Amino acid sequence: MNPELLRQTIELAAENVRRGGGPFAALVVKDGAVIATGSNRVTAANDPTAHAEIVAIREACRVLASFQLTGCDVYCSCEPCPMCLGALYWARASRIFYAATAADAAAAGFDDSFIYRQFALPDAARAIPMVHVEDTSARRPFEEWAARSDRVRY
Amino acid sequence: MNPELLRQTIELAAENVRRGGGPFAALVVKDGAVIATGSNRVTAANDPTAHAEIVAIREACRVLASFQLTGCDVYCSCEPCPMCLGALYWARASRIFYAATAADAAAAGFDDSFIYRQFALPDAARAIPMVHVEDTSARRPFEEWAARSDRVRY
Repeated sequence: MNPELLRQTIELAAENVRRGGGPFAALVVKDGAVIATGSNRVTAANDPTAHAEIVAIREACRVLASFQLTGCDVYCSCEPCPMCLGALYWARASRIFYAATAADAAAAGFDDSFIYRQFALPDAARAIPMVHVEDTSARRPFEEWAARSDRVRY
Repeated sequence: MNPELLRQTIELAAENVRRGGGPFAALVVKDGAVIATGSNRVTAANDPTAHAEIVAIREACRVLASFQLTGCDVYCSCEPCPMCLGALYWARASRIFYAATAADAAAAGFDDSFIYRQFALPDAARAIPMVHVEDTSARRPFEEWAARSDRVRY
């Protein structure tokens, strides 16, 4: 962990606020070098998925021409929300360093902690109702996937 | 819930496999009409965040010129993974309908269930180490955010 890079991430988050964005930023670091940065662009881009980590992951994968961030550390100004933590798992990042906590984000009016708590509830008890609908063809996409010898696993 | 739209989502997922993509698709529906579709593009786009739901949410927000999907239902060929479920919360979708389950996805070799279980573990016990680093400036981005009277909440 390089404290200077964490400080740089926090500064990028503060700069993003000055530009009218949300108070979050992230860096992707490989072999000690920053290969991508991201700031929250939700309202500027009309994209609820444009959190700092998602922006940084997408940019880092573009730079590496890969859908994996193996061997990369990710520095986050704040503890990743469930969406971003999920993305960091799919990207298979090596380590995550963060400064502010989900509780700090909640105190600033963001839903991170609320969403984490929702995940622990059964489908029917969630704020967004999730309905599992039985369909005889539900597993057909997986069957077709399994049958392809050239499938690219991710 | 319109069973025809769910069936259409499953068919889109199967088609995506035939095009070399992952076995997942999603639709965003507003007032009964499909306003956006998404298929998994992780390997095609070198983007680990390009899950069907994320692609569909981004496209629906572009169509609506909004960072919220208020009043929209989302049909998913499979139960959303943690990243996508987080995105659906941030987008404030109204309802989520899904066909296959996270267990079906796990049986097909996808990490959805694994990632859900990781979320329940403390930081130090996770497969990707998460390290909270204390920094005296950690909350400064939130303080600057709170001080802006023109901030756009999301």
